[in-house]
Amino acid sequence: MKPKNVGITAPVGFQAAGIHCGIKKPGLLDLALCVSEVSGPIAGVFTKNCVAAAPVLLDRRHLRHRCGRAILVNSGNANACTGPQGVLSATTMARAVAEQLSVPLYQVFVGSTGVIGRTLPIDRITTAIPTLFSRLSVKGGAQAAQAILTTDLRPKTVSVQARIGGQLITIGGMAKGSGMIHPDMATMLAYFTTDAHITPSALQQALKAAADQSFNCITVDGDTSTNDTVLCLANGLAKNRVIAPRSRTSRDFERLLTEAAQTLALLICRDGEGVTKVVKVLVEGAKTVATAKRVAATIATSNLVKTALFGEDANWGRVMAAIGRSGVAINPTKVTVRFDEIGMVKQGVGLGLEAERQIARVFKQKEFTIAVHLGLGASRAHMWTTDLSYDYVRINASYRS
Amino acid sequence: MKPKNVGITAPVGFQAAGIHCGIKKPGLLDLALCVSEVSGPIAGVFTKNCVAAAPVLLDRRHLRHRCGRAILVNSGNANACTGPQGVLSATTMARAVAEQLSVPLYQVFVGSTGVIGRTLPIDRITTAIPTLFSRLSVKGGAQAAQAILTTDLRPKTVSVQARIGGQLITIGGMAKGSGMIHPDMATMLAYFTTDAHITPSALQQALKAAADQSFNCITVDGDTSTNDTVLCLANGLAKNRVIAPRSRTSRDFERLLTEAAQTLALLICRDGEGVTKVVKVLVEGAKTVATAKRVAATIATSNLVKTALFGEDANWGRVMAAIGRSGVAINPTKVTVRFDEIGMVKQGVGLGLEAERQIARVFKQKEFTIAVHLGLGASRAHMWTTDLSYDYVRINASYRS
Repeated sequence: MKPKNVGITAPVGFQAAGIHCGIKKPGLLDLALCVSEVSGPIAGVFTKNCVAAAPVLLDRRHLRHRCGRAILVNSGNANACTGPQGVLSATTMARAVAEQLSVPLYQVFVGSTGVIGRTLPIDRITTAIPTLFSRLSVKGGAQAAQAILTTDLRPKTVSVQARIGGQLITIGGMAKGSGMIHPDMATMLAYFTTDAHITPSALQQALKAAADQSFNCITVDGDTSTNDTVLCLANGLAKNRVIAPRSRTSRDFERLLTEAAQTLALLICRDGEGVTKVVKVLVEGAKTVATAKRVAATIATSNLVKTALFGEDANWGRVMAAIGRSGVAINPTKVTVRFDEIGMVKQGVGLGLEAERQIARVFKQKEFTIAVHLGLGASRAHMWTTDLSYDYVRINASYRS
Repeated sequence: MKPKNVGITAPVGFQAAGIHCGIKKPGLLDLALCVSEVSGPIAGVFTKNCVAAAPVLLDRRHLRHRCGRAILVNSGNANACTGPQGVLSATTMARAVAEQLSVPLYQVFVGSTGVIGRTLPIDRITTAIPTLFSRLSVKGGAQAAQAILTTDLRPKTVSVQARIGGQLITIGGMAKGSGMIHPDMATMLAYFTTDAHITPSALQQALKAAADQSFNCITVDGDTSTNDTVLCLANGLAKNRVIAPRSRTSRDFERLLTEAAQTLALLICRDGEGVTKVVKVLVEGAKTVATAKRVAATIATSNLVKTALFGEDANWGRVMAAIGRSGVAINPTKVTVRFDEIGMVKQGVGLGLEAERQIARVFKQKEFTIAVHLGLGASRAHMWTTDLSYDYVRINASYRS
């Protein structure tokens, strides 16, 4: 089944809008609002960066009440490194929405993405709030998804459905973050809405699990931008039997949310800054999941590997060098490396020019898998990475101009 | 004073040569030899990469005898990930030189740099050994420095002199490694010669200290390529009073060697792949040197910072984001950031557009300093980094073609 509406307005009882309020250049949407018909449980996962942006500080505080009604997001300015003034601005954003809805301040969540360290033009945002409310619509998911973008090329939305607890449940989502696939990613924002009837704890657990299996597989160094935020707001309007923690239905819901999150995560990868390839790095045969992840992350973040992907240069030696310097105690003579199904390294030694000729063909594909087996244990982990292209440099060398 | 000869042939009693043996394209030097008149103490510092190349494995073994006579280095092929066959090739290289000199195998050290995972064409090397010996000369330092290069634009040599222990002591050196300034650097090789009379322990201590204050300030993630090697061979022909460990003369010698090593390290930075800027990252006010280093390394390796340097975009927010995600517990409200002498961040907050206009001018310089004060303690550390340019991508996307 396919829901009728797009992204965050796909579930029952959600409206959204996206408008231009004057932070970005004229004509570019820069303010998004999502409102549920009724308040409900909300879950959140945030950046681990010590220099957290003002909206993250505010959302963390509001999340203690575990109850949300609306989410307001601006693009073009990150409201980060803006000190007490920044927190005041984030609060002013939330208050403007709370007053329109006559709900407590804590039920409104805010997000910001864009340049760090510039004062947020808060007046332009508050002035635009009435217009934003007047534009709210169940068809507004697409515009909201457009309004949260920065260097993204395309808006990213998802909607999935499943029968859980006796009713059809819908999850909708939108995300931005074309830089996030990089170790020191630009901001990644992802917002999910659902009409599921679910307890706050079950929702938080499901969101954490879904983020770990999706966004955290592409955010390589952990949630590292100053603004990264993933929220999920549930309004219960599907009228299913309530989903409690650690129940069968909570596992079903978690699976559905993970599906939605992985879809957005791969959309982010494919839309990455200057990306021409998306490559899965799979590490098996590790002693622990943590070490498997560390090796995968070292390969996935290697600039030498990423430029080789861009150049379609089957330079598997750079993969070996990355494995060796990951900090994990490996035994080179046990390492196997395959590119898709083609073996290239066995017992740590290259298999010769014929194998290289074959993997050269794999490197020409838009998407493929680098599979490493460490030969040390039974644990595994994977990550998605992308190539490092001229366009990556171009976009990031001139981001603010 | 200036020694008459260049690089590794600057000290008394060293000869060198560089020739084409057939690993690289015709006309390109790819084999270098350095021979001392007499055997003497040798010190070494090697890659920490678990996937160490064959020449590193061999050199480590030979270094146990702490006595060297000659160093043979090829470029164009790294002899890494080549298994037992690779170790055999490295040994064959060393043996060919040892036989010519009639010295034990362990007195010959070898190095390789270039593509990983290709079989070393060992016959071309052994066939060229007689020619190489016939070309040995006290003027051969420049050619040897040329013969160890890969993607380097310029050969890198150094020579320094000082009066230590009653005699004029000379240290000469050469290095290659234009990719090394990157976290997953390409190979960095540095070879020093000296006519100092010094004990093996004093030499090893001095080399370790010099490397820590030079190459390890630009090799960011530690010595991470499969082939990285720094050697220092001393022949004692300056006839100074022997330099013993922890003596006044050992400190003098260490200072001289550090000067030579820092000169080569900065030459490597300036000659980095696609480099247009060399920037010093200084972190002060940390609780420990280790945490200061970690913060400096996170800034220095950030692709977003490095592309901003290339674009001359005074995007100080990316510096703040890197500080925050370094894994060091910092307090954002205590952080100060200066670009050269211009303050941009105070108590974690940006100082506004006028400050930005001023640092924009700093970003236009070829070399400048990013100075961070964490406000937590009295420890400090620094690193050198470079920008990430189109040329970096071009060079690394097509390294082998």
